[in-house]
Amino acid sequence: MYELGVVHRNISRTEAHIADALARYGSATVHEAMGRVGLLHSGMRPIYGGAQVSGTAVTVLLQPGDNWMMHVVAEQICPGDIVVAAVTAPCTDGYFGDLLATSFQARGARGLVIDAGVRDLRTLAEMGFPVWSRAISAKGTIKATLGSVNIPVVCAGALVHPGDVIVADDDGIVCVPRAMAATTLDAATKREALEGEKRARLASGVLGLDMYKMREALAAAGLKYID
Amino acid sequence: MYELGVVHRNISRTEAHIADALARYGSATVHEAMGRVGLLHSGMRPIYGGAQVSGTAVTVLLQPGDNWMMHVVAEQICPGDIVVAAVTAPCTDGYFGDLLATSFQARGARGLVIDAGVRDLRTLAEMGFPVWSRAISAKGTIKATLGSVNIPVVCAGALVHPGDVIVADDDGIVCVPRAMAATTLDAATKREALEGEKRARLASGVLGLDMYKMREALAAAGLKYID
Amino acid sequence: MYELGVVHRNISRTEAHIADALARYGSATVHEAMGRVGLLHSGMRPIYGGAQVSGTAVTVLLQPGDNWMMHVVAEQICPGDIVVAAVTAPCTDGYFGDLLATSFQARGARGLVIDAGVRDLRTLAEMGFPVWSRAISAKGTIKATLGSVNIPVVCAGALVHPGDVIVADDDGIVCVPRAMAATTLDAATKREALEGEKRARLASGVLGLDMYKMREALAAAGLKYID
Amino acid sequence: MYELGVVHRNISRTEAHIADALARYGSATVHEAMGRVGLLHSGMRPIYGGAQVSGTAVTVLLQPGDNWMMHVVAEQICPGDIVVAAVTAPCTDGYFGDLLATSFQARGARGLVIDAGVRDLRTLAEMGFPVWSRAISAKGTIKATLGSVNIPVVCAGALVHPGDVIVADDDGIVCVPRAMAATTLDAATKREALEGEKRARLASGVLGLDMYKMREALAAAGLKYID
Amino acid sequence: MYELGVVHRNISRTEAHIADALARYGSATVHEAMGRVGLLHSGMRPIYGGAQVSGTAVTVLLQPGDNWMMHVVAEQICPGDIVVAAVTAPCTDGYFGDLLATSFQARGARGLVIDAGVRDLRTLAEMGFPVWSRAISAKGTIKATLGSVNIPVVCAGALVHPGDVIVADDDGIVCVPRAMAATTLDAATKREALEGEKRARLASGVLGLDMYKMREALAAAGLKYID
Amino acid sequence: MYELGVVHRNISRTEAHIADALARYGSATVHEAMGRVGLLHSGMRPIYGGAQVSGTAVTVLLQPGDNWMMHVVAEQICPGDIVVAAVTAPCTDGYFGDLLATSFQARGARGLVIDAGVRDLRTLAEMGFPVWSRAISAKGTIKATLGSVNIPVVCAGALVHPGDVIVADDDGIVCVPRAMAATTLDAATKREALEGEKRARLASGVLGLDMYKMREALAAAGLKYID
Repeated sequence: MYELGVVHRNISRTEAHIADALARYGSATVHEAMGRVGLLHSGMRPIYGGAQVSGTAVTVLLQPGDNWMMHVVAEQICPGDIVVAAVTAPCTDGYFGDLLATSFQARGARGLVIDAGVRDLRTLAEMGFPVWSRAISAKGTIKATLGSVNIPVVCAGALVHPGDVIVADDDGIVCVPRAMAATTLDAATKREALEGEKRARLASGVLGLDMYKMREALAAAGLKYID
Repeated sequence: MYELGVVHRNISRTEAHIADALARYGSATVHEAMGRVGLLHSGMRPIYGGAQVSGTAVTVLLQPGDNWMMHVVAEQICPGDIVVAAVTAPCTDGYFGDLLATSFQARGARGLVIDAGVRDLRTLAEMGFPVWSRAISAKGTIKATLGSVNIPVVCAGALVHPGDVIVADDDGIVCVPRAMAATTLDAATKREALEGEKRARLASGVLGLDMYKMREALAAAGLKYID
Repeated sequence: MYELGVVHRNISRTEAHIADALARYGSATVHEAMGRVGLLHSGMRPIYGGAQVSGTAVTVLLQPGDNWMMHVVAEQICPGDIVVAAVTAPCTDGYFGDLLATSFQARGARGLVIDAGVRDLRTLAEMGFPVWSRAISAKGTIKATLGSVNIPVVCAGALVHPGDVIVADDDGIVCVPRAMAATTLDAATKREALEGEKRARLASGVLGLDMYKMREALAAAGLKYID
Repeated sequence: MYELGVVHRNISRTEAHIADALARYGSATVHEAMGRVGLLHSGMRPIYGGAQVSGTAVTVLLQPGDNWMMHVVAEQICPGDIVVAAVTAPCTDGYFGDLLATSFQARGARGLVIDAGVRDLRTLAEMGFPVWSRAISAKGTIKATLGSVNIPVVCAGALVHPGDVIVADDDGIVCVPRAMAATTLDAATKREALEGEKRARLASGVLGLDMYKMREALAAAGLKYID
Repeated sequence: MYELGVVHRNISRTEAHIADALARYGSATVHEAMGRVGLLHSGMRPIYGGAQVSGTAVTVLLQPGDNWMMHVVAEQICPGDIVVAAVTAPCTDGYFGDLLATSFQARGARGLVIDAGVRDLRTLAEMGFPVWSRAISAKGTIKATLGSVNIPVVCAGALVHPGDVIVADDDGIVCVPRAMAATTLDAATKREALEGEKRARLASGVLGLDMYKMREALAAAGLKYID
Repeated sequence: MYELGVVHRNISRTEAHIADALARYGSATVHEAMGRVGLLHSGMRPIYGGAQVSGTAVTVLLQPGDNWMMHVVAEQICPGDIVVAAVTAPCTDGYFGDLLATSFQARGARGLVIDAGVRDLRTLAEMGFPVWSRAISAKGTIKATLGSVNIPVVCAGALVHPGDVIVADDDGIVCVPRAMAATTLDAATKREALEGEKRARLASGVLGLDMYKMREALAAAGLKYID
């Protein structure tokens, strides 16, 4: 349950070198590295393909059809942040467009994750400001009701605290809690190190059945080959 | 409720210089300029990104699984028109493909808005013929039952009269009634004029909080900052 | 109803020259040529635009959240195959990513059709390995339960037998049974031969109404023109 | 496109004896009798089963999350009316509950058709006030922005004018335009008269194949029986 | 892929005493007894609650918006059958209402499973003729195009052969292949026999943790209790 | 982000007299009384109509397709509790049926709120054990992977802590945080006290326009009456 009408100015962000380093592994590898928790709903989609980012979450709780707090959160953005926006009730309105993106980008934001709609898609793509949203809508919003900034929010089914790390790409979005960020980075780095060699072997025609030594387990499970 | 089996040949189109001029503002700005009415459902999506058009509506009412009337409406297209196609019952079949697009383009159509499915996506993109639809389907249609051409239709939840202006881009589709087109163009032009300066200020780091003088209203609403 | 835990090693594939030739006609034309049956649900979408392929089906039945059998099917792939993956219950997990794609591609697969989710989208696009799926998800899967390989499967609502031809592009996916492949190719070739001339005439401004001689039938059906 | 901020007090209602008589035929028969137009989207569902009503439409256009105009429309209700509520943008909030239902019922309304959400379901069922809606939600609304009353509205994809007849039951909702109401009643009456005899014959074991004399047409279409 | 235009008159039905006996176990128990395959999509819902039936499948393949073959299948119904209807493309029209239900019931059908829409809900409930469908719609259909009767069909994602057993209740629908019916009945009977005693123990306050002896496995998996 | 593999045995429950008293006001009134926060997604629906309950939350985090932890949570139930079940990834399987319901009821649970599927609907209704779920499915689950009990969970988009109050009825489900329960009860009691008198006045024909003194505000907003 949400506290309304508050802005937390001092949040504890995950250390930048950790938050920054997670981007290269992408959401799938980071999700694995965390033990398969922390993924936002797959209904959240990037507005253009190919972006892959990580950064520290600043959170904002919005009211339906009202983007007033987007201006409030802008002031709390530090370079390296990703804004995570939740809404108190489902709404697909276009809360965010090129003007707010200009402001967020000027403040150093690396992207936006919003459980609602956005607009001005073409300009956002030209600006290179990546957004993950669950809707696209030309419909604008008003500025009338308070929400909050930098409180814990539920965004697309996941609980996000200010200062957590967000990793987002074409596959989805994952939230890494601040306390788990360092160990997650270690685990992701280890996973990735193993993948290069595997990829080369598979490309040469070696089968996963042999590389992962699966044949015995499959036989034990009862798999039958029929000619 | 629809009159079936009629083709209105003489329709009153919005003046071309107005219909043409609205394209540059896009659906989001035009929707704002109209007072936030006239938007089609956001389930209508462009088949490829980046197109931004406006034009005068010629309308066609189709029967489920039957695209006979698409050939009838082709003859009523004048250069600068956008075809708006509704169906008497929900249907996702592929009513429109490269042959019809060739014909529509030859007649001077600027695009198609259809509350059903389309196909031949790759060719349509190569031709540069933009389509907004609610489905993509390889499934074809028959030619057996009459609908109507240039009657008022409900397309994706919006009432469209022949001769209204359609503005469509990546953000969505808005229908501007003929009687409101001139004033909407004025309002959109004024909105846009203000945006350039705003964008420059936001890009320089000025906050919307200050530019829009929101701090006082936020405080009055009870917003509290916590350090 | 499915037989679980079996791998059929010897399947009768449609002759390669037929399976290969169908690609150029695309899913819409092939669907028409078959008499409008065999289409998979339109909720199956390509992960990137522009791919158009055909090939012989090797099928795999997966368990929810478990991609063990994807490694088993890899061994059964011959050059020119397309893998068709069904799941015993609805699941949107990311069953397939860059490592499996590397293996499939090394075995000669031309693509994957999967009634579930995939991940590593950016890498798959860079590799040029086309996938049609009903979901995108960073969420991984386990390897614990047997399914089957090269049994008939229901994928996205269509029954696919091993050795059938799959034709897939931006418009959708169609399954051509092996016994119908030769006649379907003939029918598709004839349809296509007629389209070039039609396109030229429509591009020159001839109306479908005249080219298809529809005016009489429309009048007979009662169509009225109102000036 | 909608005119906002107006209440039309004098509307031309379909004659009561016609509007009342349509209830007994139900939405399916009336939809057939009209030539299969006028049906609202099937996503609109009754909040409880078994109600079957008809009445004259009084219309109201609502703003998202705002039910102010529901109080305005209440005053325009005459005995025998059914309120038809549209919203300017998709919204599933609970616009209507037991207090408004008490007021509507006191004014003589026979039901509500609303392209949004409602609440207080148990009380509405106890009161016997039937509602067809596309959502159920405990979430309330505010009273801040004007819409309109008794203008033509698009509700669940259908255009409804004030004074048209609404027929609603478990199968769905159909809007009969005032000008077509008398002929529709005639057609529905004729359809129904034929059904009683048909039902008796089918119940006795006569097949539709014989009763409708379909065997010859099926054979002509090529139907083959295989023993 | 479907053969169109054929009616198979002689099908091999599962023995009646087996098909009949499965009803008492319901879809959940039967699905378990089969090893968790054969379930239709959960989007298929009963039109009224409380019905629980089993019977032998007679199948019908319909064309979109066309219920001609429903009259053809009626003649093939034997007492104890359940009609399973698939459509060649997604369609939510109301294919089935009180007249067809009267005919089906007169022929001895126990119910209908249809991957499309139905209507006349109130009458169907009064008649006690249970239907499982994926839509409810007042919209009728035409009688113009051939499908087939008693061919294998894909209905709601499951492959159903004529003569298989269908078990349907409030929880869903399961298809038991003829060859598995006897062993499935045995397995279901055994499952059920164990449930009565379990229910009594749980009702007395015994925990599943103890009854199923789960505590050790949970501890082995690492479960920690925190006071 | 979730801690896996833990069971908190000692939780601080809202005082029983408060938790119990909220039931009579229902979800809509309680949601209003809290300032319109705390509502679960409206996709959560009761499996049968008419139940209206409140109680203290015991929470359980489940894995996809795995209901092992449902047995673990059973032991933590105290009389007056409502079990709130979340899943680490979307899943519609039937996690809960008549045996678990028997156990939960024997422990004193008043109901279940589960962001997944349930089965054995008819028996649950006969037992009078109310469940709110987002799916119904005959498909069972396994018992293989740990989740947690009595940690904070995100269920249907809302954050629920163990010991919070859950209020659920036909309109939806609301979570009242323990710290807000007493004030919410006060506010709900006050709201309800006012409603009886209002209902009587509306039933007598008084309009909300007059009772709420809206006419002036509507006129000030520009509402025009047209005769």
